[in-house]
Amino acid sequence: MTSTNRIRLGMIGGGQGAFIGGVHRMAARLDDRYELIAGVFSARPDVNRASASELRIDPSRCYDDVSELIAGESGRDDGVQAVAIVTPNHLHFDAAKACLEAGLHVICEKPMTLTADEAETLAGLAQQKQRHLLLTHPYVGYPLVQQARAMVKRGDLGRLRMVNVEYVQEWLAEAPGPDNKQADWRLDPKRAGAAGCLGDIGTHAYQLSAFISGLTLDAVSADLSSMVEGRQLDDNVHAMLRYTSGAKGMLWVSQCAPGFENGLRIRVVGGRASLEWAQESPNELWFAPLNAPRQRITRRDDWLGDDINRGVRIPGGHPEGYIEAFANLYQALADQLNGAPADWLPDANTGVDGLHFISAVLRSNQADGAWATL
Amino acid sequence: MTSTNRIRLGMIGGGQGAFIGGVHRMAARLDDRYELIAGVFSARPDVNRASASELRIDPSRCYDDVSELIAGESGRDDGVQAVAIVTPNHLHFDAAKACLEAGLHVICEKPMTLTADEAETLAGLAQQKQRHLLLTHPYVGYPLVQQARAMVKRGDLGRLRMVNVEYVQEWLAEAPGPDNKQADWRLDPKRAGAAGCLGDIGTHAYQLSAFISGLTLDAVSADLSSMVEGRQLDDNVHAMLRYTSGAKGMLWVSQCAPGFENGLRIRVVGGRASLEWAQESPNELWFAPLNAPRQRITRRDDWLGDDINRGVRIPGGHPEGYIEAFANLYQALADQLNGAPADWLPDANTGVDGLHFISAVLRSNQADGAWATL
Amino acid sequence: MTSTNRIRLGMIGGGQGAFIGGVHRMAARLDDRYELIAGVFSARPDVNRASASELRIDPSRCYDDVSELIAGESGRDDGVQAVAIVTPNHLHFDAAKACLEAGLHVICEKPMTLTADEAETLAGLAQQKQRHLLLTHPYVGYPLVQQARAMVKRGDLGRLRMVNVEYVQEWLAEAPGPDNKQADWRLDPKRAGAAGCLGDIGTHAYQLSAFISGLTLDAVSADLSSMVEGRQLDDNVHAMLRYTSGAKGMLWVSQCAPGFENGLRIRVVGGRASLEWAQESPNELWFAPLNAPRQRITRRDDWLGDDINRGVRIPGGHPEGYIEAFANLYQALADQLNGAPADWLPDANTGVDGLHFISAVLRSNQADGAWATL
Amino acid sequence: MTSTNRIRLGMIGGGQGAFIGGVHRMAARLDDRYELIAGVFSARPDVNRASASELRIDPSRCYDDVSELIAGESGRDDGVQAVAIVTPNHLHFDAAKACLEAGLHVICEKPMTLTADEAETLAGLAQQKQRHLLLTHPYVGYPLVQQARAMVKRGDLGRLRMVNVEYVQEWLAEAPGPDNKQADWRLDPKRAGAAGCLGDIGTHAYQLSAFISGLTLDAVSADLSSMVEGRQLDDNVHAMLRYTSGAKGMLWVSQCAPGFENGLRIRVVGGRASLEWAQESPNELWFAPLNAPRQRITRRDDWLGDDINRGVRIPGGHPEGYIEAFANLYQALADQLNGAPADWLPDANTGVDGLHFISAVLRSNQADGAWATL
Repeated sequence: MTSTNRIRLGMIGGGQGAFIGGVHRMAARLDDRYELIAGVFSARPDVNRASASELRIDPSRCYDDVSELIAGESGRDDGVQAVAIVTPNHLHFDAAKACLEAGLHVICEKPMTLTADEAETLAGLAQQKQRHLLLTHPYVGYPLVQQARAMVKRGDLGRLRMVNVEYVQEWLAEAPGPDNKQADWRLDPKRAGAAGCLGDIGTHAYQLSAFISGLTLDAVSADLSSMVEGRQLDDNVHAMLRYTSGAKGMLWVSQCAPGFENGLRIRVVGGRASLEWAQESPNELWFAPLNAPRQRITRRDDWLGDDINRGVRIPGGHPEGYIEAFANLYQALADQLNGAPADWLPDANTGVDGLHFISAVLRSNQADGAWATL
Repeated sequence: MTSTNRIRLGMIGGGQGAFIGGVHRMAARLDDRYELIAGVFSARPDVNRASASELRIDPSRCYDDVSELIAGESGRDDGVQAVAIVTPNHLHFDAAKACLEAGLHVICEKPMTLTADEAETLAGLAQQKQRHLLLTHPYVGYPLVQQARAMVKRGDLGRLRMVNVEYVQEWLAEAPGPDNKQADWRLDPKRAGAAGCLGDIGTHAYQLSAFISGLTLDAVSADLSSMVEGRQLDDNVHAMLRYTSGAKGMLWVSQCAPGFENGLRIRVVGGRASLEWAQESPNELWFAPLNAPRQRITRRDDWLGDDINRGVRIPGGHPEGYIEAFANLYQALADQLNGAPADWLPDANTGVDGLHFISAVLRSNQADGAWATL
Repeated sequence: MTSTNRIRLGMIGGGQGAFIGGVHRMAARLDDRYELIAGVFSARPDVNRASASELRIDPSRCYDDVSELIAGESGRDDGVQAVAIVTPNHLHFDAAKACLEAGLHVICEKPMTLTADEAETLAGLAQQKQRHLLLTHPYVGYPLVQQARAMVKRGDLGRLRMVNVEYVQEWLAEAPGPDNKQADWRLDPKRAGAAGCLGDIGTHAYQLSAFISGLTLDAVSADLSSMVEGRQLDDNVHAMLRYTSGAKGMLWVSQCAPGFENGLRIRVVGGRASLEWAQESPNELWFAPLNAPRQRITRRDDWLGDDINRGVRIPGGHPEGYIEAFANLYQALADQLNGAPADWLPDANTGVDGLHFISAVLRSNQADGAWATL
Repeated sequence: MTSTNRIRLGMIGGGQGAFIGGVHRMAARLDDRYELIAGVFSARPDVNRASASELRIDPSRCYDDVSELIAGESGRDDGVQAVAIVTPNHLHFDAAKACLEAGLHVICEKPMTLTADEAETLAGLAQQKQRHLLLTHPYVGYPLVQQARAMVKRGDLGRLRMVNVEYVQEWLAEAPGPDNKQADWRLDPKRAGAAGCLGDIGTHAYQLSAFISGLTLDAVSADLSSMVEGRQLDDNVHAMLRYTSGAKGMLWVSQCAPGFENGLRIRVVGGRASLEWAQESPNELWFAPLNAPRQRITRRDDWLGDDINRGVRIPGGHPEGYIEAFANLYQALADQLNGAPADWLPDANTGVDGLHFISAVLRSNQADGAWATL
């Protein structure tokens, strides 16, 4: 048996002081399927250089901007094959567009773009160029989320009735102090877009619920708030959901709720059973059949399907976490680039869907909660 | 020290095969402040007699209907002082009205009446006759629910932002079998009223959230469903809430959700901390301050206030449950009848408020979720 | 159908300021099968009278001591049929002996006596007089404890391998303040006997493990400590257990462990599955089969056996607690006195067994942990 | 700022079909401080070559045995600096000895050797050669385990009274099927040594308790069993512990307990508070002060000390797991090799201590539980 080569990876964003870029790098390293060899790590030249040096990137492959990166890498036999875009939201579109046009695969943070139009452009481009765009909704990388989806699909729950999803955090419960890099751009409509916590984490909640339930959202009735004084964007979202199948749902998203760290939690209720999964205890999935004891399904190769086991590295009882879930996206993309399809991976169409969701929620909110169709 | 006499109690409903009447009797007995001496236990004479005999009621005080009970008891020095009404919903109003008019105190199951008009009539009558009407929302009898209310009131949470309440059950997830006495009347609009699970348990959820938060509900946007085929009344309620203070809320009520037994759960979020309490683990209350470890407050006289301790019979770590919470209502009413006010007890005004809530939810639902004010 | 008469009950101990007497009274009242009509509530005449008055006992049936009670009640047609003994440990024996000799049924707090000899005397007397002696180990009154026993008995766990039981409290973690009535006698060898927390709660832990496992203890190796300075009796017990079947066990009992309220918890492990139950969450029982998801069994008549359902008063999801468990003992004794056997009730033989356990633990401890047989 | 070079790493063991070698590689990769460049991955030449190829090791640096590896790498400027030994137990000693003698740093699986004598030889050699020997007890790499140790050290618990540690698994609850590579050597005294689950996971439990408590074990009283028929080594260990400070402890270790996946759990009780941590929920640490609510401390840089934060890669609420804990050992060793001391790392002396523990447990068991001093 021979090992495949590592995929040559570039990165846009993720310089010193950033958060999510480091997570992408750990995820890419964990299974040793990628090597990071080039990048534009910051718009500030000094930070860019220092970040590249710290990452042991050859200085000649630390570029000033995206077009230079494309130009520099396109001319080489050992040029990058894929680029991870980990900048604030408003920079995603131009970077992803340029990379796709240059024939590169793209790994992109969510929300994919600021508008649905931009999202559709990227989806069309990926299709036309036959390139992969992986949208990093990492929570679907958790094996038990995939198990939940499989159980819904094979009918363990019966016909679905209700979906209840929430993503609640406390980290923006107060106005942030000065120089809070993570908070600053997220609270600024110019860089974050028209949606606040709705775009930042609401898209995760929506995507997770769509992923597990397999349902198609028909319409939404929403009530957005900015609870912290002076805040321009929403920091709390309440919404009711109607699916095309007749199922109903509720969604609560907040970043101003003391006592919640990273409280992503979903309950899916069918006519025969319900499921519950919470991101902060990701190694257990609760399955509760009608009139029978509730069961605790763990992340264990004994009972997870083979496809799901792909993302299980260690035995049950040895906790895996967020980095491993994230790495499962990278691993599956590597499989895909080597010819093994992973149809569950969030892609450009997922991004389009997420932007349509954001748009419908904003429309409903502006219409005082009137049902807005997707 | 001399003991006060037991309060002489009558009961309407609660014959053999009924559920909640037995709970009232256990609650009344637990602290030995009541003696049950008369009643109309069933509209069916044989069941009425047999029930009275089983309860060791003097046959001469087992009456055929409410007017006979009032007539028979009014003439005696040792006649009943209070009457517990534990019938299906549609019978509450006439019985309560007659008892109040006869100068009796009333203990009444919820929802208090079928309409808000009836509710207001009873509230007016109780006021005019200076009689107590205890509405049995037993969940506020749990000491830690009272502790939660006290913590909100003294500002431990800061200004309230969000309330999230749910009451989810599975017991009507399928069409009930034949001769299911509990299910039959609840699913019949003639006996249950225009609200299904909304009236049966939605009123509990609403009342609990009002009790703990102290907020006044301004408007509601609702989406009701009948998930089980052929069902005439709602078995699932989704609603968004707006309070007069600017706080927002969500409410989920269901009786068709497999995997949930008696899932009443509330989270109250303020600017400085949040609280969580779940009825199925009633001896713990979670207090989660911003940027600090979450605390598990238990039912323990060391740290609960004196008023609350009134309802704590045994040391922390020795679980109390639903019957004790229910008994706390009976105990506090006995205190009241002996001159010690218990301002937290649900009364006729609580009943009026609950009917207004039901009415607003139904109006919003009929208007496709448009906000309906209370 | 005709109701049976209430059992006429007397009480020894349980006056104002006592703890467990009140629990006995609530337990006796809950199902309305007893009426308390006589007693010796305190050795202090004023407390005795005041307690009787508060309990609405006819003053003529408030006696100065046990012999007077027996003399007074024996002469009446409506005399007491059973007596509850709720005094400190050292008074149990004389009172129980006198009552049994007088032909009364006895309900006795644990540990039954101070010595195994005394215990055997009582057991012999109960047998000879054909009277019931109910020993109040209330934890076996929890329906899910009985369910655990039933599951072990029918082989759900396979052959038992290990038992791990603990009963850990914090309430004596420091030297008690002055006038702590509950602490004072428990820390005094004259009134508590030679065993400290071993006798007070260790007997509960041992009895619970014997009840559920059905195993016979062969030998014990123990290490006792008095962690709090100046304490004469043990406040921490570590022990290893060997059963006659070859199964092994561990036992941890402590009253000086901060952070534990009433932490009675048991795990029983067999070759095919294990069980776990914790007193502070008494409405759930965890069943964990080998290589299969763990199940949460709740207190619900759907799946508990008929015998066990006897002790379930309200539907699953409505918590029952310590008082209900205690009441289940009283209820089953009432059944027994009316001719329906309840073979699971702790009786005088259970008391003898508990004293033998205490004796073996003390012997092993004195022999520096050498295995002591029962 | 310039990045330090990666540490050049070799590996002994860990070929295809092995378990722990892969974990070491992920741990080494996660923070990008190591590069794996050489190894002896299997004693079977074909597996050795195939494993090296899959790991993209230069074929010239895939060696037949340890002495060849040392010879080959010693002669190069870019030779390995450290070697990870991930073989079955009986091969640790010779490999570690040879590597230390050759001046290499060693990362070694536990138990370090089969005998205490061997362990002392390695400890002496590491001291003499001034080389690091990292013993991979990964559980101390969890940030909250380090937080627990820090809280004990600064006196948050008061003087320690009791330690209760357990490590319980189900995976050897039955005789393993054929060709179970992980089980086979662990159940064979020739390869595992004289201790079964005692050596395999008992050493983890003991080391964790020593790490957090800071106590010195004085003596142990033990009862070992082989519950599964035909098993030569212990699969269940019960032990009582006595510390030099007067504190007491209990230890339960088992690999034949259905229902337990990787149940490592510890409770440390002091005079003022207690702590509890369970490996399967590693992102929370419970702190329970006397007479105050229990607190849930999470893995969060807001409140963990700076030293501990070293091992926190992502924000609170984003779970980290076993691989990250393991990686924290590798990261801290890398820091050490670059001059930053990490005094908490398990080293050769930890290994010596573990072997003395095993030896004392075996001696006590042979003496029917008589206390054996370390």
